Amino acid sequence: MPSNESVSLSDRSTVFHSWSAQGALAPLAIASGLGSRVWDFDGKEYLDFSSQLVNVNIGHQHPKVVAAIQEQAALLTTVAPAHANATRAEAARLILDRAPEVFEKVFFTNGGADANENAIRMARLYTGRDKVISHYRSYHGNTGAAIVATGDWRRMPNEYARGHVHVFGPYLYRSEFWASTPEEESARALRHLERVIQSEGPDTVAAILIETIPGTAGILVPPPGYLKGVRELADRYGIVLILDEVMAGFARTGQWFAFDAFDVVPDLITFAKGVNSGYVPVGGVLISGPIAHHFDERVFPGGLTYSGHPLAAASIVATLHAMADEGVVENARTIGESVIGPTLARLASTHEVIGEVRGTGVFWAVELVADRASREPLDAATMGRLKSSLLSAGLLPFIAENRIHIVPPAVITPAEADHGLALLDEALSVLR
Amino acid sequence: MPSNESVSLSDRSTVFHSWSAQGALAPLAIASGLGSRVWDFDGKEYLDFSSQLVNVNIGHQHPKVVAAIQEQAALLTTVAPAHANATRAEAARLILDRAPEVFEKVFFTNGGADANENAIRMARLYTGRDKVISHYRSYHGNTGAAIVATGDWRRMPNEYARGHVHVFGPYLYRSEFWASTPEEESARALRHLERVIQSEGPDTVAAILIETIPGTAGILVPPPGYLKGVRELADRYGIVLILDEVMAGFARTGQWFAFDAFDVVPDLITFAKGVNSGYVPVGGVLISGPIAHHFDERVFPGGLTYSGHPLAAASIVATLHAMADEGVVENARTIGESVIGPTLARLASTHEVIGEVRGTGVFWAVELVADRASREPLDAATMGRLKSSLLSAGLLPFIAENRIHIVPPAVITPAEADHGLALLDEALSVLR
Repeated sequence: MPSNESVSLSDRSTVFHSWSAQGALAPLAIASGLGSRVWDFDGKEYLDFSSQLVNVNIGHQHPKVVAAIQEQAALLTTVAPAHANATRAEAARLILDRAPEVFEKVFFTNGGADANENAIRMARLYTGRDKVISHYRSYHGNTGAAIVATGDWRRMPNEYARGHVHVFGPYLYRSEFWASTPEEESARALRHLERVIQSEGPDTVAAILIETIPGTAGILVPPPGYLKGVRELADRYGIVLILDEVMAGFARTGQWFAFDAFDVVPDLITFAKGVNSGYVPVGGVLISGPIAHHFDERVFPGGLTYSGHPLAAASIVATLHAMADEGVVENARTIGESVIGPTLARLASTHEVIGEVRGTGVFWAVELVADRASREPLDAATMGRLKSSLLSAGLLPFIAENRIHIVPPAVITPAEADHGLALLDEALSVLR
Repeated sequence: MPSNESVSLSDRSTVFHSWSAQGALAPLAIASGLGSRVWDFDGKEYLDFSSQLVNVNIGHQHPKVVAAIQEQAALLTTVAPAHANATRAEAARLILDRAPEVFEKVFFTNGGADANENAIRMARLYTGRDKVISHYRSYHGNTGAAIVATGDWRRMPNEYARGHVHVFGPYLYRSEFWASTPEEESARALRHLERVIQSEGPDTVAAILIETIPGTAGILVPPPGYLKGVRELADRYGIVLILDEVMAGFARTGQWFAFDAFDVVPDLITFAKGVNSGYVPVGGVLISGPIAHHFDERVFPGGLTYSGHPLAAASIVATLHAMADEGVVENARTIGESVIGPTLARLASTHEVIGEVRGTGVFWAVELVADRASREPLDAATMGRLKSSLLSAGLLPFIAENRIHIVPPAVITPAEADHGLALLDEALSVLR
């Protein structure tokens, strides 16, 4: 077994890291995991309050998912997407079983970014329109040019990295609409969205693409009526509604799909992460009937080598079965309602540094401020100190700007959640 | 065991397919594979002359790669890219070992498209320039908008699906330059490229992005001097040279990297497919020292959840070891030189319908024409009949427009290659 030092050293000398300057990195070396815990190469244990990148919803190394991967590896690891594969069809069926009835087909991708790519592609071709409206506070993936660099015919129907329009979504704690209640925030955000649609020209807008609950942007649970209002605007103007469930889907919010809690049905759903906890890279688009059938006689100009990968499909099948059998969705909901929610409310009442807590299921944000009245975000240096102290206490946190996201696996036990929150309580106490 | 019919039926009712109208699909149901062969659910055997999407270079179900996936699944299937992981670092080291010395780091992605995305991103930030020049006859992946739909800061450094300029590359059989020899084609293609660089403004061009041997476009082996000439132009004008080795890399051409045969060293290399035969979705960018170090103190604004996935890394480690131990690269070269090349030359001399054969290793194109003098491509209906007759004879072909690409696994034996080519010979005979 190598040591933390040797692993970090070989990592630093060969691996180029995301979203970082490479010089100052000190990555944590992780050797193994089980459930809500991981271990480094020196045997130190961490409680994983990050779910890595908010993806291991079913926990680390779930034995049934691991076994399914091993069995599929022995049978058929890979096959071209043009061929039919039994495991792939089963994965598609199980995903469709969790979606509203209007959904008929699944297009598989390698992750969340290309899921959104393909949803946008479908919406543009289905509507014959060009623009896509999304939120400023959002993340939909990090791809933007490969098809434009491509030279052959597959480029022309896909040169669409243009006409993207951004609007502000609801975020009462830092309202862009001078609102003072959730209802007011919701109504004003909808008014803003409609004014942008009208001003861009409704006949030019192909899709509204939003995260059901914006995730990395701050776990911004939409206020009452917002998503329903967006659905109504989409219907009024003939716009395709794409809900990005990459981070929020598959138990994260205590629902199979986050939109299940909001009485709204989109036209396209994108997913990744929770669908198989990222055990094998995969993502996809759930396609409602009318859009799916639009391509019965028309060529859909999108594809990728690993679409519908059997190994990924096997991990989806096992994950969705295990989630159902073990009540993982319900566990996430209960943990949110009876442990994380109440405890964070208590911490907010005792720690002046907490500006707001918000969330649902195992999907919570703790927003830290230098000053409660001005809501000025806590500075980066203090956030860095907080991160270090959580790590040394054995808690793996997810930190984004001035926020700690409380995003453990959906299989976390009440005792584990209590323990992690107690470590947070302690770290915040020392901060004062 | 399900039947072909039941698998196709459940596929058709749930799975949305790439690059197709969905109504007329009749996908082949593939149950399992070994080496250069696959079997459908009714037990029919096919010799795989497609390598699926030209990716299973090491053949189907290589026991050592399967075992490595199973072992890594038992240890740690997934981990966030920010953390260090021993298997990932080992995979990076083994890839770097096959590249010229100037390469220092590997950035892992989910596939070839996002490999090219990230290479373009690096080139733009490194040069401070905007445009990317690539070939009309090329395919670099199918992503183009997710980052532009994204709302947060990660969008701004990445809005680059613009300024893409396309040039004609060398293709003597259908020359765009009125050339009559390979040397002339090469010189004229270079002259054309330089005139476009000059006309676009050399100070605006960040990168030249080309497939070392354009693959899906027709396996267009570059004529003598072309790649060296491109390298010289890139140097003369301070342009980053990105070689896309997604399809051509890792044994396909009888080399570790296709550019090894052309006495040229790029600044960035993109890879996917052959690096692990697609057993787990993965791709990446090999980064030369100067570009890697450009980001020592600057944030690299790119990333993805499954970057450096342990399961993918384990399959890379096992694949590269097996390729070296079993002489897979050498086998591909020998098969090309002593079986495929000579046999295709013979077929070309007996079948009037063959306009040209070209290739290297296990990477060959047979271009079919209605008329040898005019070089008019063979019509789609006849190509369809040819495909059907190859399939019923038990050969899984790769067909692109008027071409059959002879792209079997790099582990194919001389006897298997002979057998497949005999089936092709027969099918072409019936065509007359």
